[in-house]
Amino acid sequence: MSEDQFDVVVVGAGLSGLSAARRLQKRNPQLSVLILEARDRVGGRTVSKALPAANGVDRWDMGGQWVSSSQTHVMELIRELGLEVFPQYTEGKKVHHVGGPHAKIKMYTTSMPSYSPLTLLDFSQFLRRIDHLTQTISVEDPMSSPNAELYDGMTLHTFMEKHIWTTQVKEELALCSRIVFGLEASQVSFLFFLMYSAAAGGTLRLLETTPGSGQEFRVKGGTQQLSEKLVEQIGEERVRLGAAVTTICQSSENIKVTTSAGKVTCKAVIVACPSHLAAQIRYEPALPTERQRLTQCLPIGHMMKFIVTYPTAFWKEKGFSGEIVARPSEDCPLSVTFDATSPRGNPALVGFITGVQACDWCDRKMEERRDAVISSLVKYLGPEASNYIHYEEKDWAKEEWSGGCPVNVMTPGMLTYYHPSLRKPFGRIHWAGTETATQWCGYINGAIQAGHRAAMEVLAQLCPSSLSREELDAVRASSNTVTQERIQSASHLSVTTSSAW
Amino acid sequence: MSEDQFDVVVVGAGLSGLSAARRLQKRNPQLSVLILEARDRVGGRTVSKALPAANGVDRWDMGGQWVSSSQTHVMELIRELGLEVFPQYTEGKKVHHVGGPHAKIKMYTTSMPSYSPLTLLDFSQFLRRIDHLTQTISVEDPMSSPNAELYDGMTLHTFMEKHIWTTQVKEELALCSRIVFGLEASQVSFLFFLMYSAAAGGTLRLLETTPGSGQEFRVKGGTQQLSEKLVEQIGEERVRLGAAVTTICQSSENIKVTTSAGKVTCKAVIVACPSHLAAQIRYEPALPTERQRLTQCLPIGHMMKFIVTYPTAFWKEKGFSGEIVARPSEDCPLSVTFDATSPRGNPALVGFITGVQACDWCDRKMEERRDAVISSLVKYLGPEASNYIHYEEKDWAKEEWSGGCPVNVMTPGMLTYYHPSLRKPFGRIHWAGTETATQWCGYINGAIQAGHRAAMEVLAQLCPSSLSREELDAVRASSNTVTQERIQSASHLSVTTSSAW
Repeated sequence: MSEDQFDVVVVGAGLSGLSAARRLQKRNPQLSVLILEARDRVGGRTVSKALPAANGVDRWDMGGQWVSSSQTHVMELIRELGLEVFPQYTEGKKVHHVGGPHAKIKMYTTSMPSYSPLTLLDFSQFLRRIDHLTQTISVEDPMSSPNAELYDGMTLHTFMEKHIWTTQVKEELALCSRIVFGLEASQVSFLFFLMYSAAAGGTLRLLETTPGSGQEFRVKGGTQQLSEKLVEQIGEERVRLGAAVTTICQSSENIKVTTSAGKVTCKAVIVACPSHLAAQIRYEPALPTERQRLTQCLPIGHMMKFIVTYPTAFWKEKGFSGEIVARPSEDCPLSVTFDATSPRGNPALVGFITGVQACDWCDRKMEERRDAVISSLVKYLGPEASNYIHYEEKDWAKEEWSGGCPVNVMTPGMLTYYHPSLRKPFGRIHWAGTETATQWCGYINGAIQAGHRAAMEVLAQLCPSSLSREELDAVRASSNTVTQERIQSASHLSVTTSSAW
Repeated sequence: MSEDQFDVVVVGAGLSGLSAARRLQKRNPQLSVLILEARDRVGGRTVSKALPAANGVDRWDMGGQWVSSSQTHVMELIRELGLEVFPQYTEGKKVHHVGGPHAKIKMYTTSMPSYSPLTLLDFSQFLRRIDHLTQTISVEDPMSSPNAELYDGMTLHTFMEKHIWTTQVKEELALCSRIVFGLEASQVSFLFFLMYSAAAGGTLRLLETTPGSGQEFRVKGGTQQLSEKLVEQIGEERVRLGAAVTTICQSSENIKVTTSAGKVTCKAVIVACPSHLAAQIRYEPALPTERQRLTQCLPIGHMMKFIVTYPTAFWKEKGFSGEIVARPSEDCPLSVTFDATSPRGNPALVGFITGVQACDWCDRKMEERRDAVISSLVKYLGPEASNYIHYEEKDWAKEEWSGGCPVNVMTPGMLTYYHPSLRKPFGRIHWAGTETATQWCGYINGAIQAGHRAAMEVLAQLCPSSLSREELDAVRASSNTVTQERIQSASHLSVTTSSAW
């Protein structure tokens, strides 16, 4: 019996759950920790795969792949684990095919496409406006931000319609939503978008490959190593694969966790899976209504990722960087591509089919998608694109234990009415996962940061003496940031003035 | 073994599933039909309960209770089953307490509160605008309506902010959303709101008690009788209670339906439960991605209903109708009340705690809510309100097999990207439930209409000779109204002009 009793059970062996477990162990080696994972592998939304390539076989990330110098949590972990990063290749011409059905294909080498003066003016005024708003947002307590309820009552699409003058820039931003969230601008709360941008340090950081931006570096050997090496540190015997959690039952004595592969009991639980999957677990007693309603309606992005390996990096030879940004059309499934040549020099391109394009294309045959991707690459980079070695793709929406990628987003009204329940522990159940992060929410970094935060909450509950006074204060402050009163007062503000428009 | 084989299995013994089963039997008595119901009762979101009252015990509806002369499907069923309706009592003063935190309590006897001239002008211009738009909507294929994508890209709140000039009218409409959907205006797609209004024949019909409106009549003896009497006609042995469906597995031979109480096989299935519960069933092969993504994000309204019985209808004696419309505040949980005196003359009031107020109040103790409701009734109707016989309440969000009330609504973008999958059969699985109705969607009438439509689809598939040529054409037309091409073309319209503002 005793082998089925633990101090802490972590649900999900993605980067958030593993980071939480590691933090618990480091701070208090006496704590017994068990990680339960539904899949037969660790890594969650990061997975690396060996693919046929120019020089034999090499590894590519089929999930989260980029990190950034501004992402302190993941950079620290990379250093700690003895891994290395290398910069995303960006030299040369970028291809840009946006601006209505009759748009011409453009090339540019600067950080921005060569717009007309009016388009450029429009782009800058809109980005300035968004940047200004992003700076006013409290990521910890978004409803305390100016005009919070007004902005949460509208979609990103509504704000774009109101403040963008040109069709070109509207289409650019629609594409950004698709690439960043895997969802369309009309599906996302504008306040959520601001909060998400603020958590990354600004909107442009979500999009760019420049220093500090989201697409700055890749990890040599792939990002799944982060999880695999964490498991080595934690101890393999502490991770149970193929154990999908079905019920979490809290009593005054303990917590019983039922999985598809048996039961365990513990003193505290950290749930570290995507929010909509956390909602599918049965909780006894039931979760507060606010939390239930939040997680019932957090759509997760729809992204398919593909890797195409080539005998030569013909795009580099022709002066292309490998970056393509393309508008949706009937014959082009992809939204964006980048160079994905491996550190060992195996040439490859990586790309994404996202949002409405993913929905249009995901139920067709792989061959049909592959052919459409390749012919788009031919159109943008030249006939050499048809001479590929291997095409590999992954539809994250079809992964039962992900349901989509990269992250659960919030529809309008969710922050206004249910946000306090996002991170608020329910008894001895704590919430991790990149969805609950305040620094680079939705990214690998957010997963780690959220895992650490949840671990600190558990330590504060089970063994407060393992934390410093400052750390204890920080845990308490973060639990108290958003109080129940906020909803109450928010509900009284349902009528707002239009002045913030 | 043969007793576990049926022609058609219906999932859900609410009014939609039972109406579907009855239609199947009527049209083809040879068909063997089985209805599987997760609860231990029939009726779905309609349930009638015996409560202590002035003259002993009487029955009240704790769920859906109103019908209307314009609701042809339910009125026909009521006649067929030999039941009777009676008008909602509306004589006398109505109480109206809306208009900011310092609003005065007003009384009125007309159909509209006594507004200032400016407020009245604002109210009428806004309703005219909405009514005009409602008339342009195709309920069957909302994305073919003018400016469909623009309106689906914004919330009802955004449209209100843009087109309502006065704080008073904004608050009125916010309250309407709360009462009609059990959700706030910021959570609902504006196009969905228009479609919902159009399905009822106009926005005012959702709100009023006048002839043809949603709150015109009540059913003597309660609405659950509709289901109970349908079961008598269908045959009790054809309904299995306590049988929650977990898996529906289609093969080329048959369909296997697994429940918590055993397995059955059949040739066709009608799923007639709320959309978000239909999403929790496991389907093999998996549902199309479009359908999965639609049902993953359809929040269901949050409504608590209460009945308070009294020794005398003191409000009538004092010249009140019993109708109260109140703004949210910290001490008043209710949004709206009506007279609920029974046909046998047992005095009662009925009221609703909805939307954000439901979320604020639902996790408190029943006694706390009851005392707040009673003291609000005292405030609005006089001290006699504290002398009640019985207070009964039902939180539909806490019913596992409902999850909320009255209906699943659509957040922005859902109609644009996923609507075609709402009613589209998946192989031999058909979709019923009031969510899929085109006439009074979200109401009892919609449940029946959707059940009939799904039954006709199944008949067209299994035994087309039992339908007339016109009926077969109608089934085909309805399945073809929205084609896959629509999504494709919609996605190319993601940039719209602001002219429709």
